[in-house]
Amino acid sequence: MEKLQEIGEHETIRRLTALLGGHPQLRTGAGDDCAVTELPGTGNDQIFTTDPIIENVHFKSGEKPERIGHKAVGRVLSDIAAMGARPQWLLVNVVAPLEQDVYALERIYVGMNALCHRFGATIIGGDLAQGSCLELHVFGTGTVPSGTALLRSGARPGDCIFTTGSLGCSIAGKHLDFVPRIEEGIFLRQTEWVTAMLDISDGLATDLRHILKQSRVGAVLDADKIPRNGSLEQALHDGEDFELLFTVPPENAGDLCGRWQERFGNKLVAIGEITEEVEILKLKRDKEVQILERKAFEHFSTTV
Amino acid sequence: MEKLQEIGEHETIRRLTALLGGHPQLRTGAGDDCAVTELPGTGNDQIFTTDPIIENVHFKSGEKPERIGHKAVGRVLSDIAAMGARPQWLLVNVVAPLEQDVYALERIYVGMNALCHRFGATIIGGDLAQGSCLELHVFGTGTVPSGTALLRSGARPGDCIFTTGSLGCSIAGKHLDFVPRIEEGIFLRQTEWVTAMLDISDGLATDLRHILKQSRVGAVLDADKIPRNGSLEQALHDGEDFELLFTVPPENAGDLCGRWQERFGNKLVAIGEITEEVEILKLKRDKEVQILERKAFEHFSTTV
Repeated sequence: MEKLQEIGEHETIRRLTALLGGHPQLRTGAGDDCAVTELPGTGNDQIFTTDPIIENVHFKSGEKPERIGHKAVGRVLSDIAAMGARPQWLLVNVVAPLEQDVYALERIYVGMNALCHRFGATIIGGDLAQGSCLELHVFGTGTVPSGTALLRSGARPGDCIFTTGSLGCSIAGKHLDFVPRIEEGIFLRQTEWVTAMLDISDGLATDLRHILKQSRVGAVLDADKIPRNGSLEQALHDGEDFELLFTVPPENAGDLCGRWQERFGNKLVAIGEITEEVEILKLKRDKEVQILERKAFEHFSTTV
Repeated sequence: MEKLQEIGEHETIRRLTALLGGHPQLRTGAGDDCAVTELPGTGNDQIFTTDPIIENVHFKSGEKPERIGHKAVGRVLSDIAAMGARPQWLLVNVVAPLEQDVYALERIYVGMNALCHRFGATIIGGDLAQGSCLELHVFGTGTVPSGTALLRSGARPGDCIFTTGSLGCSIAGKHLDFVPRIEEGIFLRQTEWVTAMLDISDGLATDLRHILKQSRVGAVLDADKIPRNGSLEQALHDGEDFELLFTVPPENAGDLCGRWQERFGNKLVAIGEITEEVEILKLKRDKEVQILERKAFEHFSTTV
């Protein structure tokens, strides 16, 4: 018997995904931030994603309910932002023990609704079941003009790598009150310059490798350029930053930084460059360039 | 503090649903088998539903994995059938303990895919998280011509009440290998005769009350007519039959039974009639008519 803890999260997902079938209207299946399907006759594609958050894995028991709700919806909106899409409908499954305080559940919904309202999303259904601890499973859809969803697979050698904000130390609080980068994602899609994009949920190094793998490229990160809240190690490996990570051809990078500053009032900084060395991730530090090895063993993501 | 076990499942859902907002494109929100949204420009509406199944609540530990997968997808397809809709996209969140056998997860997917394939549905994404027991959260979408989704709210006094199959004793096995009534649901919608419909998941009596409440009507069931696998009590109150329960005006009932027999080769029998007495459910038995009282306390649904 091969157990989940031996196989690991990503390999298990790969095995399960390998069993799935295709469909003529499915543009992009499992493996990106969202699945992308055609909506014939509308000029749009529809995107789908789902994210669970679980007590004592993604939040501590006793955490403020509004913040739990904010995080549950925020993770899904962050996946939608990573496609450059506009969020639309959400459904929520709640699992809770029989001794769950119902008022706390209502406050979770207040937190979820507040974030939905801010970005034009609407919770339209869900279900409630009994379990041993509190869980929220949020399912979300969004829309994007046909064929324009930003995938992980389009980065090309020479492209500049950008992130929308500072990385690391999310555990100090940001993981419960981050603002999903919906507006930034839509802005970036509309520039038509972005070649690949995702949101950073498992840490810069781990998530950048998804772009490298799916785009068949490598990358070198510049340690001095990475905007960070703590140490370099934390900026590279801490999870749940929920910033966007994206690539832009060098000839557009200057214009992008100018338009970004105009629109959002802060500076966008290139943190590295895409290279030709397939799936090789390097780090430039004190003028030395070294290969950044993959973490020895991949655990399930845990915040608390 | 008011605990979930004191408030009960339906009242808790009512409180959480009361917090939700609306949207101009949302035709039917939480409270029916699926939410219904407009898909402008397509001539169709899109429907959304979600259902969790949890180890030792909806299936026993050690159950055959393919059957667990079948049930998880079957429940969602049954909700879609209850709208008269055609299923389209599914996403699946898996929660599993670290010691979960990964091969068993693959077999669950084999069971899910087989049922999807049969009804033209496609699993396009999902997520995997760590938890204390096995759970599957299936989110599903479907499509139906604009404005034709069958709701719970259209039953009228005098309508005949029908069900698509025998009721009760699902625990003996049917709850793990039932066939969702997708074809029957689409057929029924296309007749344009059905005034209200849902799928029986919590038992005939409990689910019929949803139609009574949302249609502002009453009903009298004929004990001798209810097709059943066990006792009358079991047919009335056992959960997880996943048969469709629907209402049809009396002037169309005869034609419907004829066309049903032609199409599906079995007999459709009227099991009762809609009345004017709002939310009063009666049972006719041995020529006596008695009020069927609501069960004293509503528990969370448990199969095992």
